[in-house]
Amino acid sequence: MRFTDEHRAFRALVRDVVEKEIAPHVDEWERAGIFPAHELFPKLGELGLLGLEYDPEYGGQGADHMYSVILVEELHRSGCAGIPMAIGVQTMMATPSLHEFGSDELKRRYLEPAIRGTAVCSIAVTEPAAGSDVAGLRTRAVRDGDDWVINGSKLYITNGTQADWLCLLARTSDEGGHRGMSQIIVETNTPGFSVSRTLDKLGNRSSDTAELFFDDVRVPVSNTIGQVGRGFQQQMAQFVVERMFVAYGAVTSCRHALERTRDYLKQRQAFGGPLMASQYLAFRLAELSAQVDLLQSHNYACAEAYLAGEDVTRQATVAKLTAGRLLREVADTSIQFHGGMGYMEETWTSRFFRDTRLASIGGGADEVMLQVLARMDGFTA
Amino acid sequence: MRFTDEHRAFRALVRDVVEKEIAPHVDEWERAGIFPAHELFPKLGELGLLGLEYDPEYGGQGADHMYSVILVEELHRSGCAGIPMAIGVQTMMATPSLHEFGSDELKRRYLEPAIRGTAVCSIAVTEPAAGSDVAGLRTRAVRDGDDWVINGSKLYITNGTQADWLCLLARTSDEGGHRGMSQIIVETNTPGFSVSRTLDKLGNRSSDTAELFFDDVRVPVSNTIGQVGRGFQQQMAQFVVERMFVAYGAVTSCRHALERTRDYLKQRQAFGGPLMASQYLAFRLAELSAQVDLLQSHNYACAEAYLAGEDVTRQATVAKLTAGRLLREVADTSIQFHGGMGYMEETWTSRFFRDTRLASIGGGADEVMLQVLARMDGFTA
Amino acid sequence: MRFTDEHRAFRALVRDVVEKEIAPHVDEWERAGIFPAHELFPKLGELGLLGLEYDPEYGGQGADHMYSVILVEELHRSGCAGIPMAIGVQTMMATPSLHEFGSDELKRRYLEPAIRGTAVCSIAVTEPAAGSDVAGLRTRAVRDGDDWVINGSKLYITNGTQADWLCLLARTSDEGGHRGMSQIIVETNTPGFSVSRTLDKLGNRSSDTAELFFDDVRVPVSNTIGQVGRGFQQQMAQFVVERMFVAYGAVTSCRHALERTRDYLKQRQAFGGPLMASQYLAFRLAELSAQVDLLQSHNYACAEAYLAGEDVTRQATVAKLTAGRLLREVADTSIQFHGGMGYMEETWTSRFFRDTRLASIGGGADEVMLQVLARMDGFTA
Amino acid sequence: MRFTDEHRAFRALVRDVVEKEIAPHVDEWERAGIFPAHELFPKLGELGLLGLEYDPEYGGQGADHMYSVILVEELHRSGCAGIPMAIGVQTMMATPSLHEFGSDELKRRYLEPAIRGTAVCSIAVTEPAAGSDVAGLRTRAVRDGDDWVINGSKLYITNGTQADWLCLLARTSDEGGHRGMSQIIVETNTPGFSVSRTLDKLGNRSSDTAELFFDDVRVPVSNTIGQVGRGFQQQMAQFVVERMFVAYGAVTSCRHALERTRDYLKQRQAFGGPLMASQYLAFRLAELSAQVDLLQSHNYACAEAYLAGEDVTRQATVAKLTAGRLLREVADTSIQFHGGMGYMEETWTSRFFRDTRLASIGGGADEVMLQVLARMDGFTA
Repeated sequence: MRFTDEHRAFRALVRDVVEKEIAPHVDEWERAGIFPAHELFPKLGELGLLGLEYDPEYGGQGADHMYSVILVEELHRSGCAGIPMAIGVQTMMATPSLHEFGSDELKRRYLEPAIRGTAVCSIAVTEPAAGSDVAGLRTRAVRDGDDWVINGSKLYITNGTQADWLCLLARTSDEGGHRGMSQIIVETNTPGFSVSRTLDKLGNRSSDTAELFFDDVRVPVSNTIGQVGRGFQQQMAQFVVERMFVAYGAVTSCRHALERTRDYLKQRQAFGGPLMASQYLAFRLAELSAQVDLLQSHNYACAEAYLAGEDVTRQATVAKLTAGRLLREVADTSIQFHGGMGYMEETWTSRFFRDTRLASIGGGADEVMLQVLARMDGFTA
Repeated sequence: MRFTDEHRAFRALVRDVVEKEIAPHVDEWERAGIFPAHELFPKLGELGLLGLEYDPEYGGQGADHMYSVILVEELHRSGCAGIPMAIGVQTMMATPSLHEFGSDELKRRYLEPAIRGTAVCSIAVTEPAAGSDVAGLRTRAVRDGDDWVINGSKLYITNGTQADWLCLLARTSDEGGHRGMSQIIVETNTPGFSVSRTLDKLGNRSSDTAELFFDDVRVPVSNTIGQVGRGFQQQMAQFVVERMFVAYGAVTSCRHALERTRDYLKQRQAFGGPLMASQYLAFRLAELSAQVDLLQSHNYACAEAYLAGEDVTRQATVAKLTAGRLLREVADTSIQFHGGMGYMEETWTSRFFRDTRLASIGGGADEVMLQVLARMDGFTA
Repeated sequence: MRFTDEHRAFRALVRDVVEKEIAPHVDEWERAGIFPAHELFPKLGELGLLGLEYDPEYGGQGADHMYSVILVEELHRSGCAGIPMAIGVQTMMATPSLHEFGSDELKRRYLEPAIRGTAVCSIAVTEPAAGSDVAGLRTRAVRDGDDWVINGSKLYITNGTQADWLCLLARTSDEGGHRGMSQIIVETNTPGFSVSRTLDKLGNRSSDTAELFFDDVRVPVSNTIGQVGRGFQQQMAQFVVERMFVAYGAVTSCRHALERTRDYLKQRQAFGGPLMASQYLAFRLAELSAQVDLLQSHNYACAEAYLAGEDVTRQATVAKLTAGRLLREVADTSIQFHGGMGYMEETWTSRFFRDTRLASIGGGADEVMLQVLARMDGFTA
Repeated sequence: MRFTDEHRAFRALVRDVVEKEIAPHVDEWERAGIFPAHELFPKLGELGLLGLEYDPEYGGQGADHMYSVILVEELHRSGCAGIPMAIGVQTMMATPSLHEFGSDELKRRYLEPAIRGTAVCSIAVTEPAAGSDVAGLRTRAVRDGDDWVINGSKLYITNGTQADWLCLLARTSDEGGHRGMSQIIVETNTPGFSVSRTLDKLGNRSSDTAELFFDDVRVPVSNTIGQVGRGFQQQMAQFVVERMFVAYGAVTSCRHALERTRDYLKQRQAFGGPLMASQYLAFRLAELSAQVDLLQSHNYACAEAYLAGEDVTRQATVAKLTAGRLLREVADTSIQFHGGMGYMEETWTSRFFRDTRLASIGGGADEVMLQVLARMDGFTA
């Protein structure tokens, strides 16, 4: 009902791409701390995977949102979280605002190559002094004639060392708080722009992360996405899509981890039989499996509401919060139930444990999600 | 989309009935340890509430399953769990097998008055020695000519002191385990039947609970529902509906409790302001609210799958398990955040704390749900 | 080492008293909503149980603190929490300030009969508008010549309907906050004093709880305990002893409950054997048992530090917080593992579930304990 | 009382050593995946740190157990878990059996250099096919004249690539289960012994871990520690000390992490003030701080009982179980509250998160601890 035969065929296609183009390279990319986006993305672009819901006018597929759900679910079978995240930044974090609010010219120049995969892009919001507190950011774009002159820095930027352009959020007025920001596209070959640092992370190591520095970077005002001064609001909408991305991926990751853990426990002999004979282990896995079901039901409800054009802020926030916590629990259990072997880097549990820990921190920490929900429900004085 | 205007009108109708016919009497019925089923049920029957999805041929409404969802949700705004449970036994636990598998004659004689509310019925499965372990039950019906002669006892039987007939599960052969059981309708005015004890429970006090005794109770074999020997299987299907019932009600109960707790915390002054100014309390409520959302998404997915004729055993099991735990957490939090006042019987939190504790025990304990899920997912040796 | 042979003999004595004088009456007292303090307390007083650590000059035993630990532990084998609480109010909540700061005259008049058990006393601190926020209380004692004239009300007062005198905390100046309060002994036969309401509680039902009303109640200023204006500080010290009381009792209550649950699971047959064969149930009990051990170690460390004259505010706060939560978990598990039978009022689990819920609310709610700890550890801006 | 001035002076000494000889090198050793045991251990040996409780006859200090507590606590301020673990293996895991049961000759040859730090040792129990199930091990020592001929392999062996000798547990008879094992000292320069693999772990990276291979390794029977056939029992006693080691270290690690997290939250500005102004964060830290207090009380009670010569199996098991879980929670919270910065490898939280995960797996997994407790408490059919 939810998924048609075409959806199912698409799932098979993505699964195939993941198996052939991503999974075999993951170990190498993890060791390298980066993956070759300019090699991988064009392959994905050719198959239409980088612009599923976007306007065919700019190379998109004009597909419905369930295709994105499928894409995200299948990408998380790749054996790491870094590559799905890098792709998610390209498709669900750095480009939605541009697609929705950008001028035709901007879309031709930046969206088209992003959809083709010939350009790699990043979303540059977080700053050293403002973590999840987007309203506190300080990078500033001051108008000078037809240009913005940008100064400041951005931290934890995914794809940051190899991006061709950034969807930057900067202050364009002195109003403070969440007012007076704008979204501006910045090409990374602009003078004054530099990658000040490459960051070594606990997990998601195949995805490069950078600190960016802006020193009098000059960009035409026409590179502004949508309205000047509406950047915060546009970015907030873009964040909602990011939350959904995290939640869709979590279901596959968790399901896959539970299956692999089960398979291990079935063959591992100890205490006179297979470990899977332990009722304690079985019930614990069953509890987690139940929680994965709940999140999946919720994700699909959220996806359908999004498809129907509803505001899904609340649903996506609940989904993201739940996903982050569930991933942590599943990863913690997977490593535990693998015993000493689980603690070895050669076992998948180890990377899974490191990778999954990001979900409750990035894309708005759990505490930010709780704050959003508390406000929505009137849990305030 | 899910709920049409007609659904919404129905919800208003049920809300009205609850407010007028149930809520005003709850305190009195709770004190009495029983409610007058033979007064209340005919009123509900007249409005069609006791046979929503049943065949109009027997007085049912032939409505879709979403009407049942609405009925259950709204009943849980009555201020207690006992009355919704008593009604649920009548509509979703004691009669589904009869409706699906019963002969026309049985349906005319027993289902029709149950739908009209002129007959009160119970589901008699649990036994003193077999709790959640249905396969271990011992009550026995031995064939003697065209009669069953029944001996044994049943425990924790809702509506048990005022039921007119029971949907009894008994052994009708010596095969043991889950084989050789049958569902048999037993009228409570049959010689040899007696209510051996009325039980005083922690909560759900407005609903009467009994221990039943069968001493050579003679019932025609034609009172068998469906096939002789298929009772366990038919009952298992009936249990699935019961699990859904618990989960649907939990969402309303929890939502309502969180709202009332919030309202209390907004007006309660302490430590220099309203308690709702506490971020700790707010985030805790937000966590629970998120979990209620998840369960609701899952419930609706389950309801739709049921409506579409799918096997929802797994979904209903996940929902029931989650519902029981969530109710406990919400009740525990509600009482805690009301402080000393919350511990007083005059405050709603106290009854809510007592009532909700049943959900993880009745209708198959949490551990049974985990066992079902563990088997379904292959978490077995 | 910790407990000498004399301590052990004392434990046997208390256990005997509990078995003979308390346990056999608990069911009746629970139903009645009150116990006959003026009958029971003199018996306890005669055995020296009501003034263990107090000065022999006033009838106390001059015993070390470990005797109090033993008393509290053994009282919690009585089958209810109400009677131990009522005794605890007499010995560890309403009299410590009087013993430490009271004048010789006050001690002769009030402490001596309290130790003998001929007078019943209460601690009157909590108010309708101030719950756990002691600094927010409003009952006021205004000086008029050599008298205090007291107006206000107090809520949730244990022993409140049968107390002979109260250790009242009231404002005696206009300074506000936690300044300007005093502890004053008020006889309950003073004109203007009344019990405005008897409260019906979720649990601890054998212990009476009252709302008290003060309408121009006149008491000599010489009834002030210690210094005028130091009431808050003296009361805070008295609260520390209360926290220890809760924690000492919790260990026995939990241990006893785990043993009873184990014994039930060993004899209860289901799913082809005793329920105790379930690894899931066994490990869950083991987890709780481990937590009880931890609390006991901590309690004993706290008791020894107290005995050594150290400030045990932090230790007692940690113990109280832990006790409240552990009791809840153990009670929740006990009822769950007893299944349907556990939900019946005739089974001990039901009362245990109702009784134990108070520990996280009374004597300073969990959230107050967390606030105390957060300040002590510098978890503040 | 517990700690004398001499104890305190010793603590200062260890703290100084940690600061000068360990902490400055940790980053380098972590990167290298090994630390130079043959350089570090002689320095520690010279200060008497490697044989605190051992007989002065063999170079030990003859000190009381509280010195060991202090050593372990202070080692965990080194900024990693790997070095403390490596030292713990030398002092509390590989040598206690030798000290207690070894012949004078064995002690002169192996214990003395281990105490001086000139020899590095390992405990070789765990096997590829037997994880926490010690009774299932297969490495076999067959007697041939005055020699044992050893065949088999051992996995996850700390210090394994640089050890001079191993305390090996092997089967020396065909009885099976936990019977017929012996503890045998094996020098690593014996022909037939090899390090078959160096293992790359999630954490504890400064400590080398190896898989060892035994191919007809010939060792004199006089290298047997204690009685032939009593190896399992002797090893179980040695494991109890290991559990205590884990628990002692956990208290310091957790306390230190909570302090560092607090200090970070105090200086980190977001949402209009320091993050430490958040009540939610403060209460969460307070909860964890309370749990650390509990574990510390329990550890000290366990240490005193051990000092008094009591069997502390139960206490040590509770401590180990609690330590593993608490470390996980504290590490998870530390990383969460540091936000994006916490996820970077340059921040201490990242290594802490990786290192601490071992405690619930190594030294007997949580599930093994639960099994031990369940048996002790009779939670068995």
